[in-house]
Amino acid sequence: MTQNTAEKTPVTLLGLGAMGTALARAWLAAGHPLTVWNRTPARAAVLAAEGAHVTASAAEAVAANPLIVVCLLDDDSVGEALTGIDLTGRDLVNLTTSTPAQARARAEWARARGARYLDGGIMAVPPMIGAPEAGGYVFYSGSREVFERHQKTLGVPAGTTYVGQDAGFAALHDVALLSAMYGMFAGAAHAFALIRKEDIDPASLAPLLADWLVAMAPAVHQTADRLRSGDYTQGVVSNLAMQVAGTPTFLSTAEQQGVSPELLSPYFALMRRRLAEGSGEEDLTGVIDLLVR
Amino acid sequence: MTQNTAEKTPVTLLGLGAMGTALARAWLAAGHPLTVWNRTPARAAVLAAEGAHVTASAAEAVAANPLIVVCLLDDDSVGEALTGIDLTGRDLVNLTTSTPAQARARAEWARARGARYLDGGIMAVPPMIGAPEAGGYVFYSGSREVFERHQKTLGVPAGTTYVGQDAGFAALHDVALLSAMYGMFAGAAHAFALIRKEDIDPASLAPLLADWLVAMAPAVHQTADRLRSGDYTQGVVSNLAMQVAGTPTFLSTAEQQGVSPELLSPYFALMRRRLAEGSGEEDLTGVIDLLVR
Ligand SMILES: NC(=O)c1ccc[n+]([C@@H]2O[C@H](COP(=O)([O-])OP(=O)(O)OC[C@H]3O[C@@H](n4cnc5c(N)ncnc54)[C@H](OP(=O)(O)O)[C@@H]3O)[C@@H](O)[C@H]2O)c1
Ligand SMILES: NC(=O)c1ccc[n+]([C@@H]2O[C@H](COP(=O)([O-])OP(=O)(O)OC[C@H]3O[C@@H](n4cnc5c(N)ncnc54)[C@H](OP(=O)(O)O)[C@@H]3O)[C@@H](O)[C@H]2O)c1
Repeated sequence: MTQNTAEKTPVTLLGLGAMGTALARAWLAAGHPLTVWNRTPARAAVLAAEGAHVTASAAEAVAANPLIVVCLLDDDSVGEALTGIDLTGRDLVNLTTSTPAQARARAEWARARGARYLDGGIMAVPPMIGAPEAGGYVFYSGSREVFERHQKTLGVPAGTTYVGQDAGFAALHDVALLSAMYGMFAGAAHAFALIRKEDIDPASLAPLLADWLVAMAPAVHQTADRLRSGDYTQGVVSNLAMQVAGTPTFLSTAEQQGVSPELLSPYFALMRRRLAEGSGEEDLTGVIDLLVR
Repeated sequence: MTQNTAEKTPVTLLGLGAMGTALARAWLAAGHPLTVWNRTPARAAVLAAEGAHVTASAAEAVAANPLIVVCLLDDDSVGEALTGIDLTGRDLVNLTTSTPAQARARAEWARARGARYLDGGIMAVPPMIGAPEAGGYVFYSGSREVFERHQKTLGVPAGTTYVGQDAGFAALHDVALLSAMYGMFAGAAHAFALIRKEDIDPASLAPLLADWLVAMAPAVHQTADRLRSGDYTQGVVSNLAMQVAGTPTFLSTAEQQGVSPELLSPYFALMRRRLAEGSGEEDLTGVIDLLVR
């Protein structure tokens, strides 16, 4: 490190798994003084050689700096690692993946121990950390004060997107986007399965598929507008009745190609249910209403 | 029409539903002489006023020009509308949505009647027809000769993408892309359902969701590469074991938010099945193998 570290906020990082190690390297590369702790000491030793200050206990690491970043396996490991440790006056930023309820409970827990709490949901994999051009970012929610005070430091490993004071909102946004991604991957899996027995190169389908998904993704803006207005029918081009009428073509094609319909059928079933409720003039937005209990 | 129509290929179009009417207007606007027929004459009358030549029977329309475009409700209606009509020497371009098997059978049927056959699958809705900037296009497969002879004319209403001599391939590509799109829509529906009971504006989620889906769509290129090589493990960043370990967070979050997991569970179930087969070091590509019987 030849950079001047004098003005860079010192960071304490607990957890040096794949993600924690990537975070650590990003802060070290940017010249932030870094104190690290990991349950298994061997993983920290590597980073000591790269300039990190390694502590023997989590308590020492927490005592070292006002800003504590935690990136452990799951919410339980956060509770375990921090048991009995004085958090008074600390800014605790928890990047461990959690559910919204876990994040909210952890925020309460931190407050009761005198810490300010910011939760994070990482929208990136380790190779994207410290590489802004890769487009990874982290959702943050909880203490706005902590977010604003440390935004620059938190922005070193990946972009930052603050989504509200409710500590559960970062996790909720994280889960929402990844759930949608799994839906898209499920659809793509079905598409690749359909061509499996044909003389069609998957690599010739891929660009068509990618372009089509990219072109259709912005439809979510219209969905949002309809959800806000409550009007699912105005200006509909392909209505639900037409789309349900088209589903046998999809199911027959799957059958002809020897492909299980299990990834498509549940959505089609919801479309049919919504149609049966008399919503044939709507677009597909009404399916969302059926999902919420 | 003030354009010089002398050099434009004359087109016969059977079917003036929402899509047929849009096609008709695109050819008329581009100055192609157009002969139209529709089972219900009222729909043709409108186009007569716009310059189309209207015939009283499908047979007359077919006799009028060498290039016949058909855009009817479904494959059965194509058979019905063309029953007993002489197709000798015609270039029959069928834009009616079909399954691959229907398209292949229709190609045989046309050949037996002396016609050359090109099948099409329309990746557009009527408002996108005749508006190249909207990005709609049509998959074509079957006779390469017919495609090449008429590519310019066929390119007037929407872009053209030829995907092979197998008449079923246009339908297969069409269904594959739309199936993937429904998967993406299912994922997005789940995402919007997750925030339903929170003070989160769907319109603030939408841009995050759209950007994320757009960023993740190119993953299909890597899937294609893995399918070609048969190697699902090399260079994997988030392996199947890690991703399956993450699924309880998604399912618990859905439960906490009162959202049915029915659109997510089938994909997760396949991920677990693949993991149980000992494929924890793979990425998600192996799920595709489980779909194909
Ligand atoms: N990797 C990704 O692609 C990715 C992407 C987005 C979000 N995330 C999230 O980032 C977090 C960390 O992920 P990762 O990939 O770094 O995981 P990982 O490589 O499995 O590392 C897990 C870390 O948690 C520690 N740990 C586990 N149980 C503990 C306990 N009871 N007490 C103390 N420490 C404990 C481990 O310490 P030991 O070394 O002692 O085992 C290790 O440092 C997770 O919440 C994950 O969901 C990861
Ligand atoms: N609209 C879209 O967004 C869209 C998008 C992509 C692909 N497509 C495909 O394009 C094709 C046409 O769609 P569309 O939206 O135009 O449908 P549409 O508005 O429902 O029109 C159906 C057309 O088929 C005719 N027809 C139905 N049964 C017939 C029969 N037995 N004999 C003769 N004619 C018959 C109808 O004639 P009448 O007027 O006499 O009823 C009408 O011209 C379909 O295969 C559809 O899947 C449509």
